[in-house]
Amino acid sequence: MAEAPRTSEARRDAVFGRWVVFSPARSRRPTDLKSHNPTANPSSGPGADAPKPSCPFCAGRESECAPQIFRVPPDDALPWRIRVIQNLYPALRRDIEPPPAPEPEVVDGEAEAEEQPGERAVRGFGFHDVVIETPRHDVRLWDLGAEGVRDVLLAYAARVRQLREHPAVKYVQVFKNHGASAGASMAHSHSQMLGTPFVPPSVTSRLNCMKGFFDRSGNCSLCEIRSKDILISKTPYFSAIVPFAASYPFEIWIIPQQHLSYFHEIDEAKALDLGSLLKTMLQKLSKQLNDPPFNFMIHSTPFGLSSSCLPYAHWFLQIVPQLSVIGGFELGSGCYINPVFPEDAAKILRELDCS
Amino acid sequence: MAEAPRTSEARRDAVFGRWVVFSPARSRRPTDLKSHNPTANPSSGPGADAPKPSCPFCAGRESECAPQIFRVPPDDALPWRIRVIQNLYPALRRDIEPPPAPEPEVVDGEAEAEEQPGERAVRGFGFHDVVIETPRHDVRLWDLGAEGVRDVLLAYAARVRQLREHPAVKYVQVFKNHGASAGASMAHSHSQMLGTPFVPPSVTSRLNCMKGFFDRSGNCSLCEIRSKDILISKTPYFSAIVPFAASYPFEIWIIPQQHLSYFHEIDEAKALDLGSLLKTMLQKLSKQLNDPPFNFMIHSTPFGLSSSCLPYAHWFLQIVPQLSVIGGFELGSGCYINPVFPEDAAKILRELDCS
Ligand SMILES: Nc1ncnc2c1ncn2[C@@H]1O[C@H](COP(=O)(O)OP(=O)(O)O[C@H]2O[C@H](CO)[C@@H](O)[C@H](O)[C@H]2O)[C@@H](O)[C@H]1O
Ligand SMILES: Nc1ncnc2c1ncn2[C@@H]1O[C@H](COP(=O)(O)OP(=O)(O)O[C@H]2O[C@H](CO)[C@@H](O)[C@H](O)[C@H]2O)[C@@H](O)[C@H]1O
Repeated sequence: MAEAPRTSEARRDAVFGRWVVFSPARSRRPTDLKSHNPTANPSSGPGADAPKPSCPFCAGRESECAPQIFRVPPDDALPWRIRVIQNLYPALRRDIEPPPAPEPEVVDGEAEAEEQPGERAVRGFGFHDVVIETPRHDVRLWDLGAEGVRDVLLAYAARVRQLREHPAVKYVQVFKNHGASAGASMAHSHSQMLGTPFVPPSVTSRLNCMKGFFDRSGNCSLCEIRSKDILISKTPYFSAIVPFAASYPFEIWIIPQQHLSYFHEIDEAKALDLGSLLKTMLQKLSKQLNDPPFNFMIHSTPFGLSSSCLPYAHWFLQIVPQLSVIGGFELGSGCYINPVFPEDAAKILRELDCS
Repeated sequence: MAEAPRTSEARRDAVFGRWVVFSPARSRRPTDLKSHNPTANPSSGPGADAPKPSCPFCAGRESECAPQIFRVPPDDALPWRIRVIQNLYPALRRDIEPPPAPEPEVVDGEAEAEEQPGERAVRGFGFHDVVIETPRHDVRLWDLGAEGVRDVLLAYAARVRQLREHPAVKYVQVFKNHGASAGASMAHSHSQMLGTPFVPPSVTSRLNCMKGFFDRSGNCSLCEIRSKDILISKTPYFSAIVPFAASYPFEIWIIPQQHLSYFHEIDEAKALDLGSLLKTMLQKLSKQLNDPPFNFMIHSTPFGLSSSCLPYAHWFLQIVPQLSVIGGFELGSGCYINPVFPEDAAKILRELDCS
């Protein structure tokens, strides 16, 4: 219908202030998930133990994937447990010229004092990677031991540290889609990250909101959370809660107890602790909600923020089970309707035994 | 599991600054749409002409609905064409005490200078209404004549004007869900509106963004749109475009050409013009995308804004076909990935013949 496919482009509009990535190549990516109904449990059904013949993420089919960035363990003589690879259908491309640097800083202090007109377009430069969490098609992230989940988290952090070295990368969004209703096109357990040449809109508004809280109270809004009602579980370094104003039923936040701004600075001990807590939370959701589709997102801080931001910038991991479809009210207003009170969801998850 | 169901409550969190409505009663609402796959065409299939025995929105089943607010035509001796009724499973309730007024103004000028701490909860007061667009189960909004769509738009406007009289109502979100993948639980053609005791977050950020554009350029960002590339169609009073940074493939905005801040002030002539254009756009989407699920939302201006807001506040109607599921990247970053360039979508829709 149109001319030759164009390279991707990111645009910001003048009404919602949203950045949107236009990526015609994305529509060609394959899917091995047929319906948009809740995930079929990949570990049930005939032949689930064998690698799936058509899955490029399975061990033995590495040549069908886009280039590898690194693997765990690094030694090629040993079988891999985790692979970090390029996305074959990237939304943003690493092989085109980055937009002219330095961009004006979008967050911190003069947040709204940009020079640009409202509408803007930048070339679709950026990094889009996939983390294959296991060589086995039938293993889900929470089937791994705490050490296995730790290693996935450490792989995220290592890759974020690499991307941070690129002067045009302003932020890296780490996320996981599980199940077709959560957007996943591939069933084999994996996560993704996108390194963007702009600070994404939700990151800006999150930091502005946390700044507002800090300016009024002198405290970081995530350090302040003390309520027992919404607590699910606590480990030496992390708390898992259902947030006070959860947008989604059974939404969970895992928050470092210490005030830390950057996920990618996580060390091995904290990653093991987080790995164990994340595993437990995913097990609880799977048990309580019958293996629901879900997303998780790591909310960190843009690179190179001035140190005056750091007192209110606190990273955390958000898990969102996708139990219903949102409608026009949420799309229009940005306000969510949640049928489950956070205290009730927290109580259920707290008392649920997954051992 | 928990105690007796609680009344609903709206809460704002201290991190994203989002309002969320907690409404346990919502989970009891019925559904006559079984799957989350794209809408089956309700006008095909056996017996589609007859009223559906179980549908409370069909003519003859008015007694199964929550109370009526008004009907079109008003004369009870004539059959109704449109009914505006209370939602039987309201997210916000009209029968509880509204939160103490006046609230601090969330938009305009001192937008961020609120006194409140970050987290807040207010009683779940508000209005949640349903607009039944036709007495017939098998008729879709765009099957009505332009006059029929006009009357639906005038019914929205009349109800918004009623809600505006309530001192605690700050904003009314008018929206439509069509098809299960767009969130609809009822197939019979209808739309909804929610009158909220707060200005919803997307409304605040939209107005702040439009204010930024106005402050920099001296112009309203929607009055400024002139590009022919993204234009689908123009009528005497309205333009239909695919926005420059559309978040969704084939997203459409219908914008009054004149600078107008409030949808509810629409007159009959403009409503007829809009009705005809909206009908054409929905027909085009239905034809091009095979009756896709979609939402539309009317983006208007909060009540009682100071007149200094009005130069940049311009209402419009946004139509969003739901062709794919969003994933963790969008949820985490607020940045959308769209495989279709707006110019390409606009060209296709412009050239598509629906006569
Ligand atoms: N052989 C191969 N080598 C390397 N990479 C390969 C590959 N084959 C497939 N891929 C990539 O693997 C990824 C799998 O990702 P997911 O299943 O999490 O969802 P996807 O990104 O498709 O879309 C979901 O997530 C995105 C981002 O949130 C949303 O835009 C979208 O609507 C939603 O469906 C795809 O991005 C695909 O491009
Ligand atoms: N007899 C009766 N009398 C009066 N009213 C009746 C009724 N029977 C049903 N209703 C109401 O009719 C409405 C039908 O609305 P829709 O089909 O547009 O979607 P719904 O509101 O269910 O949820 C979608 O839209 C909301 C708001 O966007 C999202 O929160 C949600 O996730 C999404 O599925 C429901 O709100 C229901 O409560």
